[in-house]
Amino acid sequence: MRILVANPNSTEAITEACATLARAIASPGTDIVPWTNRHGPPVVDSLYSDYMAGRPLAKGLATLVPRSDAILLAGFGNYGTGAVKETLDLPVVGMAEAAMAVAMPLCHRFAIVTTSPRMIAYTEDLVQSLGFAARCAAIRAVNLPPVDEGEPPVDEVASSVLTHVEALAAGAVADLVILGGSRLSPCAAALRRRTAVPIVEPIACAVVMAEGLVRLHLGQSKTGKFAPPPLPLDRYA
Amino acid sequence: MRILVANPNSTEAITEACATLARAIASPGTDIVPWTNRHGPPVVDSLYSDYMAGRPLAKGLATLVPRSDAILLAGFGNYGTGAVKETLDLPVVGMAEAAMAVAMPLCHRFAIVTTSPRMIAYTEDLVQSLGFAARCAAIRAVNLPPVDEGEPPVDEVASSVLTHVEALAAGAVADLVILGGSRLSPCAAALRRRTAVPIVEPIACAVVMAEGLVRLHLGQSKTGKFAPPPLPLDRYA
Amino acid sequence: MRILVANPNSTEAITEACATLARAIASPGTDIVPWTNRHGPPVVDSLYSDYMAGRPLAKGLATLVPRSDAILLAGFGNYGTGAVKETLDLPVVGMAEAAMAVAMPLCHRFAIVTTSPRMIAYTEDLVQSLGFAARCAAIRAVNLPPVDEGEPPVDEVASSVLTHVEALAAGAVADLVILGGSRLSPCAAALRRRTAVPIVEPIACAVVMAEGLVRLHLGQSKTGKFAPPPLPLDRYA
Amino acid sequence: MRILVANPNSTEAITEACATLARAIASPGTDIVPWTNRHGPPVVDSLYSDYMAGRPLAKGLATLVPRSDAILLAGFGNYGTGAVKETLDLPVVGMAEAAMAVAMPLCHRFAIVTTSPRMIAYTEDLVQSLGFAARCAAIRAVNLPPVDEGEPPVDEVASSVLTHVEALAAGAVADLVILGGSRLSPCAAALRRRTAVPIVEPIACAVVMAEGLVRLHLGQSKTGKFAPPPLPLDRYA
Amino acid sequence: MRILVANPNSTEAITEACATLARAIASPGTDIVPWTNRHGPPVVDSLYSDYMAGRPLAKGLATLVPRSDAILLAGFGNYGTGAVKETLDLPVVGMAEAAMAVAMPLCHRFAIVTTSPRMIAYTEDLVQSLGFAARCAAIRAVNLPPVDEGEPPVDEVASSVLTHVEALAAGAVADLVILGGSRLSPCAAALRRRTAVPIVEPIACAVVMAEGLVRLHLGQSKTGKFAPPPLPLDRYA
Amino acid sequence: MRILVANPNSTEAITEACATLARAIASPGTDIVPWTNRHGPPVVDSLYSDYMAGRPLAKGLATLVPRSDAILLAGFGNYGTGAVKETLDLPVVGMAEAAMAVAMPLCHRFAIVTTSPRMIAYTEDLVQSLGFAARCAAIRAVNLPPVDEGEPPVDEVASSVLTHVEALAAGAVADLVILGGSRLSPCAAALRRRTAVPIVEPIACAVVMAEGLVRLHLGQSKTGKFAPPPLPLDRYA
Repeated sequence: MRILVANPNSTEAITEACATLARAIASPGTDIVPWTNRHGPPVVDSLYSDYMAGRPLAKGLATLVPRSDAILLAGFGNYGTGAVKETLDLPVVGMAEAAMAVAMPLCHRFAIVTTSPRMIAYTEDLVQSLGFAARCAAIRAVNLPPVDEGEPPVDEVASSVLTHVEALAAGAVADLVILGGSRLSPCAAALRRRTAVPIVEPIACAVVMAEGLVRLHLGQSKTGKFAPPPLPLDRYA
Repeated sequence: MRILVANPNSTEAITEACATLARAIASPGTDIVPWTNRHGPPVVDSLYSDYMAGRPLAKGLATLVPRSDAILLAGFGNYGTGAVKETLDLPVVGMAEAAMAVAMPLCHRFAIVTTSPRMIAYTEDLVQSLGFAARCAAIRAVNLPPVDEGEPPVDEVASSVLTHVEALAAGAVADLVILGGSRLSPCAAALRRRTAVPIVEPIACAVVMAEGLVRLHLGQSKTGKFAPPPLPLDRYA
Repeated sequence: MRILVANPNSTEAITEACATLARAIASPGTDIVPWTNRHGPPVVDSLYSDYMAGRPLAKGLATLVPRSDAILLAGFGNYGTGAVKETLDLPVVGMAEAAMAVAMPLCHRFAIVTTSPRMIAYTEDLVQSLGFAARCAAIRAVNLPPVDEGEPPVDEVASSVLTHVEALAAGAVADLVILGGSRLSPCAAALRRRTAVPIVEPIACAVVMAEGLVRLHLGQSKTGKFAPPPLPLDRYA
Repeated sequence: MRILVANPNSTEAITEACATLARAIASPGTDIVPWTNRHGPPVVDSLYSDYMAGRPLAKGLATLVPRSDAILLAGFGNYGTGAVKETLDLPVVGMAEAAMAVAMPLCHRFAIVTTSPRMIAYTEDLVQSLGFAARCAAIRAVNLPPVDEGEPPVDEVASSVLTHVEALAAGAVADLVILGGSRLSPCAAALRRRTAVPIVEPIACAVVMAEGLVRLHLGQSKTGKFAPPPLPLDRYA
Repeated sequence: MRILVANPNSTEAITEACATLARAIASPGTDIVPWTNRHGPPVVDSLYSDYMAGRPLAKGLATLVPRSDAILLAGFGNYGTGAVKETLDLPVVGMAEAAMAVAMPLCHRFAIVTTSPRMIAYTEDLVQSLGFAARCAAIRAVNLPPVDEGEPPVDEVASSVLTHVEALAAGAVADLVILGGSRLSPCAAALRRRTAVPIVEPIACAVVMAEGLVRLHLGQSKTGKFAPPPLPLDRYA
Repeated sequence: MRILVANPNSTEAITEACATLARAIASPGTDIVPWTNRHGPPVVDSLYSDYMAGRPLAKGLATLVPRSDAILLAGFGNYGTGAVKETLDLPVVGMAEAAMAVAMPLCHRFAIVTTSPRMIAYTEDLVQSLGFAARCAAIRAVNLPPVDEGEPPVDEVASSVLTHVEALAAGAVADLVILGGSRLSPCAAALRRRTAVPIVEPIACAVVMAEGLVRLHLGQSKTGKFAPPPLPLDRYA
C-alpha cells in the first residue's frame, strides 16, 4: 500500500519530520511517500496562509502521477481538505480529523494544544466545522518561534506543552490531549514519558486511519458534498 | 466613499451584474468600484473552486492600489473571506454574512435558496461557520445551468426560487428568504413582485453594511482572529 | 428619511443622550425624532421594569402620528420589541440586535458589558432569544448607580468598562465588545481612545441598520411571527 | 394551603375553566383562588397581547392582599412570568414550565399543540427560553376561533388535537403531547379516552408543582435573576 | 398511596436515610416503602458500579409483589432507570430528573454538587442524557470517603458543599444548587440554614413528583422508548 | 496481536457472524478471539436488555484470562461500554463509536439504520452520548424478526436497508450510511453492490480501530472518567 503524506506547506524539514513519524507507525508493506506543497507557504499560521496553501495543494494532488492508495494531509487545519476530497476518489484524511476520531473512544473530553495563541480561534473554527465540538473541552497554545528560525529542541517544546497538559488534567478540564500542529508532533514521545494523560499525535493517527480506509475499501462519499466539481478541473484555474 | 465590489470568480458578466445591483442601492457619494478575480475560477460551485478563488482573491486585494474605504466580497461563500480580513485593515464584508445580519431583526427563521443541489452542504457549513445556524431553518436549491451557458432569463430563475419560497411559507418553515448566490441576486425584484415573503438580496445588504461600517469607523477586530499574519505577506506565496 | 428613536424608559435625559448619538451618525437628510416612553419606568433594570415598559411602548408606538420611516428601539433589551414589530409595518430595529448584527462580520467572538450584575442573566436570555449565542463569548457587568442619581462622568464609566475590555482581550475571550445598555453608549468615544479592541455602540449601529432597511425596502416579515395581531389593537387593552 | 390561579387574560370564562381544572387535581386542604387579569387583554394570542397582559398582571399580583402560598400562572406563555417571580418571594409557577417539567421523566421527546398557527413561533421561543428545547420534538397548531366567539365543543377541539397526536405518534416524532394553551386544557379528558399517548394538561401539572414547592419550602431563587427589582415597585409605573 | 423508594445500591443505611427524607415530605396517606438493591453494589461511584446496580435493580423491580403506585429511584444517576421504565407501567421517577425538573422554574442556571471528583464526568453525561444541559451551569464535587467508612458528620459534609455554593453564587455562575447524590441529601437542612441560595434535595423532589404523577394519572409513555421490551422478561436473563 | 471480539448478547450465531466479519478485515498476524456474553440476554433490543447485558459483560471481561491486546465490543449500543473501559487498561472500542469515528472524514452527514423502530430512540440517545450528534442527520429502522426466529436471508435484509439508503440519498439527507446493529452487518457486502452511497459496517471499523490503538500504544485515558473504580471490583457484585 502506498500512502502519500502531503505537507500543505513548503518547508521540506517539516515534510521530513512528518514522513519519519508516519514511517514509524506504518504497517509493514505500507510505503510512505512524502510530498511537499512547493508552491504553498512555508507554514500555515493564519487564514491567509491557509488559502495560500490550499490552491497549489488541491491542484497539485489532483494531477499527481503515479497515484497512491490514500492521501494523508499533514497539517492540523483546513487548507482545502474538502477540495482535495472532491477532486479525488481515493481516501483523503486530514490529520486533525483523524486525531479527533481516534480520541473519541478514549476520553471524556479532549483538549488541543496549538502552535501559537493566534491559532486558537482558527482551531476553534476547525473543530466546529469538523463536527467534534461536543467533545472538545479546550484549546490552548504554546508559542513556537517563526518557522524560518528552525525548530526549538524537542524537550523544550514538550515542556511548554506539558504545562498545559498538567493544568488541563489538574482542573479536570480534559483527560486527553491532541497535539494540534505538525510542528508539535515530534515531541509526542518525550511528552508521553512525562505524563499519564494520553497524548494523541495526529500523523500517526492519520496513517492508521488511511491504512484502515484502504483495507475497508472506504473513501469519502461521492454522492454529496465531495462529488467531483461540475466542470473539468482545468476550467477552474 | 469608495467601495470595492470584489467578485471572487473571473466571470465579468457576474461582476457587472453585482456592480449594477450595488450602484442601485449605494448612497449618493458612494463610488462602487467593480473588481474581478481574474485569476480565479469562472464560478464558485464547489469546494475546489472555493480554494481556487481564495488565493488570487486574497493576494490581489492585499496589494490593490488605490485602496478603497471598504471591500464587499460579492460571492455567497467562504473563498478566503477571513484571509482578506486578516491582511487588510479596512472593513471587509462578505455578502452572505451581510444578508444574514440584515435578516436577523426581520424574521423568526430565515431560509436560503442556493444555486444547485450540491451547494446545499456547502451552504450549511457556511451558515454554521458564520454563527447564524440558530436562525436558519432550511437551505434549498434551484438548479442553475453551468455558468458558461449564460444566465437564464430572470423570470425563469425567479419562478424556480418562488416555488421554494411558497413551500417554505406554506409550511411555516421560514418567514424570510435569502438569495444564496450572486447569480440569483438579479431576480430579487421580480420575486418581490410575486410574494409577500421578504426576499433578502445579499449584495444590497452588503453595500448598506459596508457603508455603515465606514460611517461607524468600525472594521474587523485586529486583536484576535483577524490580526495580520505573522510573516510579511510575500513570504506566503 | 425620518427615524423615530424610541427610548423604552421615561427618563428624558437618556432619550436626549440617545438622540445625540443617533444624530451624530445619521446620514444627511435623516431626521432623528426622539420619543420617550412617558408611561414607562425610569429605567429598564429588571424583568419587572421590562414589562412595565413594554405595554406603554407598544401601545404608544402603534398609534403614533405622524409616522416615521423606521423605528429604533433605544434600549438594550426586550421590553416588547416583538410586540412593536407585530403592530407596525414599518421597519423596527432594537439596538441590541443591531449591535450584534454589526459585530458578526467583525470578530471571532464578541462580549457584552452590561450596566449591573443583575442584568447579566437578563442579557444572556436576550442574546439567546435573538439567536446570537453562538458568537457571544461572555457577558460582563459594570455597576452603574440608580438612574435617579444621575449619570456618572463619562470617563469614570469608560474606565469601568475598560477593565473588562482589557481582561477579555488579554484572555483571548473576545476580540470585540458591545456596550450593552443605553446608559453606557455615551462612553464609546472615550473607550475607543483607550483600546484597540473594537467597541460597538448600539445606537449608532441601529441608526445605520434602520436607514439601511428603509433604503432596502425591507421590514420585518408579516408572514409569520410578526403578522398583525388577530384582533383590532384596541381590543387588547 | 392557598394557591392563586392567575389567568393572564381578562376572560372570566377561561379563569373559571382553569379553576375547575385546578380544583379537580388539588389536594384536600388546598384552596384554589381564581384571579383574572382584569386590565389585561381578552386572550394572549400574539406578542402584542403578551405585553398587554404582562404589565397589569405583574402589578396586580405584586400588591395582592391577602397573599397566597403560591401562584400558578394559567397561560401557556411568557407574559411577564419572570417579572412576577422577581417581585414576589412566594413560589410562582407558569403552566408551560410545569407541564414540560412533568413531561421530562415520562417520554423520549414531547410535542406541544398550540391554539393557532401563528402561536407556533411564539411557542418555539418559549420552549427555548425555558431551556426545554433539547426534549421538544415538534410544535403543532389547531385553529381555535377568536375568543369572543366562545369556545367550540370540547369534543371538536379534542378531535383537532387528536389528528396531530396520531400523526406525531405514527411518525415516531414524539411519545407525549402537551396541550399548549389554557383554551385546550378542557379537552384533556376527552383526548385521553381516545389515545394511548400521554396527554399532559398543564394546569393540573402546575397545581401539583405549586403544592410541591410549598411543601418543599422552595421558591424561585432570590440570589440571581429573580432578585427583587432595584427600585421600589411604585417607581416603575 | 404507596411509593416504593428503591435504593440502587445495597447499603441499608443509605436506604434508611432516603426513606427518612421521603417520609418527611410525603403527604399524609402516602406510604413510603423502602427497598434495597440487595444484589447491587454498596455504592454507585463509577460506571462499573452503575451497571452492577442496574441489572438486579431492573430485575428486582420488574417482579416485585405487591406493587406500589409509583417508584422513586433513590440514586443520582442512571443505573438502568430507562430499563425500569420500560418494564413497568406505573410511574417511575429518578431523583436526578425530579430534582432538575423542580429546579427549572426556580432559577436562571443551576449547579450540581456531586460526591467525588470522578463523578463529575458521570454527572455531566447524566445531565446531557436527561436533556437539562441548557440550564446546568456547573458540576462541582466534594470528596466523600468510601461508603464503608460510614458517613461523615452532616455538618462537615454541609461545610464542604457550602464552599462550592458560596463560590458559585459569588461568581454568578448559578443561583440554585442541587445535591447530586443520596449521600449528600441528609445535609440539605443544615445547608439551608447557612445560605440563601436555594438548595434542592432530590429525594424530596422525587416524592413530590411521584405523588403528583399518581394524582395526575400520568406515567412514562408506553408508545415509544419506554414500551415493554419485545420478549418476555425472563428471556433476557 | 490478539483482539477479543466480545458479543454483548448470548447468541452464539451472532458471535460467529461477527468473528467472521472481523477475521475478514483483520491484518495478518491479528488473532480474532470470539467471546459470547453467556449470562447476557439473547439480543440487546431494549433498555432492559441493555442492562441485562452490561453486568455480566463487564464482570466477565474484567477477569478474563488470558488477556488480549484490545477488546472490540460487538454490539451497536451502550450495554456497559464505559464500565468495561473503567476496569481495563487495554484499549476497548465499541463498534458504534468506531463506525462513527470512521465516518467522520468521509461524509457531510451520516445516517444510521437500526434493527427495529423501537431502537430509534435508543440509538438517538447513543449518538448523543458519544458526541457525534452534530454529524448524524437521521436514524432509520428496518424491522428484523425476533432473534430466535433466526436471521432472514442477507439479500432480504439488504433490500430493506437499501430502501432507506436510497431515500436518504435522494433527499440529500445523508451521504453515508452506518449499519446500526450486529445483525445488519452481514448484509454490508450485498448492499455495496447495489448503491454508490458508502456503507459503513461497524465491526470492520472496530477491528481497524482496535488494531490501530494497539499500534499507537493508546488506550482509554485512565486520568478521568475511565479511571479504575474506587473499590476492588469484587466489592461491587
